Amino acid sequence: MKRSGLAALVALALGIAAGAALAQAKPEVLVKQRQAVMTLQGKYFGPLAAMAQGKAPYNADVVRRNAGFLDNLSRMPWDGFDPSTKDVGVKTAALPAIWEQPDKFKEAGSRLENEVHKLYEVSQSGDEGAVKTQIGAVGKACGGCHESFRQKQ
Amino acid sequence: MKRSGLAALVALALGIAAGAALAQAKPEVLVKQRQAVMTLQGKYFGPLAAMAQGKAPYNADVVRRNAGFLDNLSRMPWDGFDPSTKDVGVKTAALPAIWEQPDKFKEAGSRLENEVHKLYEVSQSGDEGAVKTQIGAVGKACGGCHESFRQKQ
Repeated sequence: MKRSGLAALVALALGIAAGAALAQAKPEVLVKQRQAVMTLQGKYFGPLAAMAQGKAPYNADVVRRNAGFLDNLSRMPWDGFDPSTKDVGVKTAALPAIWEQPDKFKEAGSRLENEVHKLYEVSQSGDEGAVKTQIGAVGKACGGCHESFRQKQ
Repeated sequence: MKRSGLAALVALALGIAAGAALAQAKPEVLVKQRQAVMTLQGKYFGPLAAMAQGKAPYNADVVRRNAGFLDNLSRMPWDGFDPSTKDVGVKTAALPAIWEQPDKFKEAGSRLENEVHKLYEVSQSGDEGAVKTQIGAVGKACGGCHESFRQKQ
């Protein structure tokens, strides 16, 4: 079996298992958890954005560390957008479009995961120009999802 | 694409004040970030604790995934316990002992990181007994720190 096919099967199995394990999580807990991921993505992406903008000195070690953290964080929010959280009654900027256009939302999420993983890979080389270009691609993936699925801030 | 174009895109995507990432994070932001880590450690350790306690069926794939996430998360909270957050005026269970006994706090944090990393390593083999034993060791590391440094819940 090819690696990609195996990976897909494992991902499928994981998704089902994780879904079952989370079946009892309360909607307000799911919202808190997904917001926690966004908070931490901001913590670790903010400094990289500043570097890409030339507003902070480039630091390859920080980029590598943060990209590794983000590579994990970018996979954490999605199961928090369970349909049970649609009318949860706690403060959230999540728009109904998330559940009205699930395929588009899933695609936007996958795009973030992919761009962040590319950043992680590029960060290993330490090539500053390539890293900064990829930081921009990650920023666009953040913005692409926020544009359609997050209430304007 | 030119660097300046990238910078504009990143800034747009993030929707944050340009200088925000440069300045020292505000104490209330640090508290929010470290609490976000605790929330996510709970999300990914909870199911493992349930497995070790026999309250959920053992699932090696979930253990591997969660242990990988936790291996990253366990390194994220510590810079959030900056002395500037000692009297921040927002709700927090952090006790003054954190800043009164910094060496002991640092040791407790390192112990968590080490036990979680061991769990990550053990989870790769999938040996159920060894994994469950190590889940217990992680739980003790959580509790060891909470016992001395977190307000009783």
